[in-house]
Order: sequence, then structure tokens, then C-alpha cells
Amino acid sequence: MKRIVLPVSGRSEESYELAPSKIICLGLNYAEHIKESVSVRVRGFTPDAPNEPVLFPKTPNALLGPGENIELPAIVAKYEFEEPRTDHEAELAVVIGETMKNVPSGRAMEYVFGYTCANDVSQRNIQNLDRSGWYRGKSFDTFCPVGPVIVPRDAIDDPHNLAIRCRVGRRVAQEANTGQMIFRIPEILEYISHNMTLEAGDLVLTGTPSGVGPISPGDTVEIEIEQIGTLRNGVVAAG
Amino acid sequence: MKRIVLPVSGRSEESYELAPSKIICLGLNYAEHIKESVSVRVRGFTPDAPNEPVLFPKTPNALLGPGENIELPAIVAKYEFEEPRTDHEAELAVVIGETMKNVPSGRAMEYVFGYTCANDVSQRNIQNLDRSGWYRGKSFDTFCPVGPVIVPRDAIDDPHNLAIRCRVGRRVAQEANTGQMIFRIPEILEYISHNMTLEAGDLVLTGTPSGVGPISPGDTVEIEIEQIGTLRNGVVAAG
Repeated sequence: MKRIVLPVSGRSEESYELAPSKIICLGLNYAEHIKESVSVRVRGFTPDAPNEPVLFPKTPNALLGPGENIELPAIVAKYEFEEPRTDHEAELAVVIGETMKNVPSGRAMEYVFGYTCANDVSQRNIQNLDRSGWYRGKSFDTFCPVGPVIVPRDAIDDPHNLAIRCRVGRRVAQEANTGQMIFRIPEILEYISHNMTLEAGDLVLTGTPSGVGPISPGDTVEIEIEQIGTLRNGVVAAG
Repeated sequence: MKRIVLPVSGRSEESYELAPSKIICLGLNYAEHIKESVSVRVRGFTPDAPNEPVLFPKTPNALLGPGENIELPAIVAKYEFEEPRTDHEAELAVVIGETMKNVPSGRAMEYVFGYTCANDVSQRNIQNLDRSGWYRGKSFDTFCPVGPVIVPRDAIDDPHNLAIRCRVGRRVAQEANTGQMIFRIPEILEYISHNMTLEAGDLVLTGTPSGVGPISPGDTVEIEIEQIGTLRNGVVAAG
């Protein structure tokens, strides 16, 4: 297993080994992203906002540390898609601190260890192709960059008031604020913990704002979140 | 994390702790099951056989040991489905023995540690509801019973010639042979390992034959596979 160790911000002696038993992601959690998703014809995306969080997993083989390269998977070539497209998706990630099951929203934040930046890299053609849903297009190796640090829960006043950006090279592709989430972290964690047990170290990715777009070999992708830092990854074609 | 330890068949001193980094399942891998799935209107199921394996994950929170109870999730009640339905699915599970990436089918079996029985328990209404795909309906806690033992690879002559059965109480619900798989284990592992890295301890569930059907509180479900044994679990409503 790939081993990803991130410093814990403000605690110079401490680091955190990310070895999540699962990575649960939200789809459709920013209104402007729902609108653009209809225009890029992502299957399952309709203009109506969801009435509960939309969950999908990324498996841990997708994890990638800061500074490492996102690899565009070789297997995609065999499908001969007219417009093959792999997108960046800037997201605030929550690191779970202890086992959570059936926890009400009012107590959910007590179970949070901290926060980091994540990139929910998505191969759109495969995401739309698979009859079983979004899984494979979201879970190729290297498709879940995280970092550069974990910020402990109490070091952030309000996780719903953080500027979030994605840059591809010097171009600002995504620019939003975590306050624009449709479902907020306490509701998200309540919902997930009523569907499955969350474990210490699990990651919850809270959805991406609008501005998702393609990445190509040679690009550098930066996910920057206020009070956390900048997660930077290159993009290469898998060897 | 739930800890599931199974004896290794034929090695009286040895047991195996199942702590998979991921559980990858195949949909639509028996022709007769594809036919019945159309009739029960599972979303994404069409009468044509897939031209490549259909993958979806179960997250490790779903793992359940032999003799433990499958819990029908309480959260399903809130949707007020007209016919709520959770099904059994008998499957041969492969336990991966070492890291696998881009392995051709001709060498894939060298990476297999062994085999066990699995039940791919599936909440159909949720499986069909979620815009993101099959994930949530397949991954409630307790929805992946495995066991009762792991049989090492070399102790089974031909994994594609094993009788596989599911009984609900005394009724035989599924009765087939693993030789009826559309994609066989070497091709399955080649395909998965070209899409993502498999790790030692990962589980691959090879799809279910026809005869899937509902389970209810009070039922006992048995998955029996020739040369492996019988995996037995009760069914209860979650508390």
C-alpha cells in the first residue's frame, strides 16, 4: 500500500499517516457545479439539487501525496473516446477522528480530526460509460491527491467560510467558498454515519464547486484552500 | 475496524485476518442473472451481456464474519419504498496474495492467495435510487459476509468447476456452477489490475448466478460452495 504521511499543521512534532479504510465523496454539493455538470452531460446529473447527499467512494489505491504526479490511465486509450477527458475537482476533505455511527449533526463535529485539500480527479468518459456508476472513473491510481498538511479541527474557526481555488498552471479554473456547499459538514457526517460506520482516518470529500475542467500531461494542478495551504501535483501519462 | 479472522483450510495452525484495502465486485457476470435482473428492473441492467467486466466496490465497513447477523439498515424506512427489498447474492470470492498491477491473464493466478464464500447483500431500492450508482445500496454495514474459511489456491483444482448454492432457510434459492461465469478469474484479475493496483488481502467478488431474492428478519442465509464450505448468517432488522 502507498504510504502517505502529512504534517499536522501547528504541531511541529506530529505527522499523520493517511491509511483510510474508505474515502467517501459527495457529488453535486455546490449549486453552480450542478449547473455546469448538466452542460458537460455527466450521467446522473440533472438540474435539480439533490434532497440528500449523493455519495460515492474512491478506493485507497487512488491516494496520492503532495508533489507527486497524477497519472492519466493508459487503459482509457482502448475505448477510442472522441474526446477523452480527465478533470480536476478541488475539494475540502475532512479527516475523521474516531468511529462514528448514527451520530446526529449537533454532535458530528466532535468526531472530526481535521481538514486537508483534495483533488477528486475524474475520468469523465469512464464515469459515464460504466453501468454500475461513477466508481471506476473516480478511482484510478493517483486520482485522489491529498495534502499538503492536515489542519486540526480547532485551528479552523469556520470550515464553511474558506476560499477554495484550483489553478491549472497560472490559470484560475475554480474559485469559490466552502460556504456555498449545499449540505454542510455536520449534516454530511450525520447522513454518512446513518448509512455506514465511519472509522478514524477515513476521508470525506465534500464536493467540488464549479469550474471543473480537463487536465493534460505537463499540467501542474494546484488546489488551494484558505487556512490549509496548497496541494500541488503534476500530470503525466501513465507509463 | 471490525476484525475478521478466518481459518486457512488444510493448515491447522494458520488463520488469515481479512483487512482488505478494497473489495471489488463484479456485476452481470452470469448470463442467467442478467436475464432476471432485467425483470426486477435493476438500474443499469440491460439484456445484453457486458463486453468487459462491470466493477463496483463494497467498502470494508460492510464486512461480516460467519455466524454473525446481516442487519437490514434502519435508514431505508425513511424513503417509504412501496416494496423495500434486500437480496442475497451468492458469490465466489478471491483473496489476493500480493500486489498486482498490469498483470496479464496468463500470470494472474500466481497472485491469488485463495478463495472463500461471499454474500453480496444488496438493497435494491437504494441501488436504483442513487444517481451516483450502485455503491450505497451495496455497502451498508454487514452487507459483505465472508467465510467460513479461506481455501489456499492450490487446494482447489479448478475454481471454474464448483457447485455454488444459496439457501434461505431450507429453500434452495440459487443453484449454479462457477463454470458459468462470463468472465473467468484470470481475465477478471487482468482487467482489474489494468484499472487499479490490487493489494495483498484485497477481495474480488466474482458475480452472482441467477436466483437472487429477498431476505427478511428471521431468515438464515447459507452460501455453499463446493470444496470451500458453507457461510451461514442470520438476518435481523438493525436496532
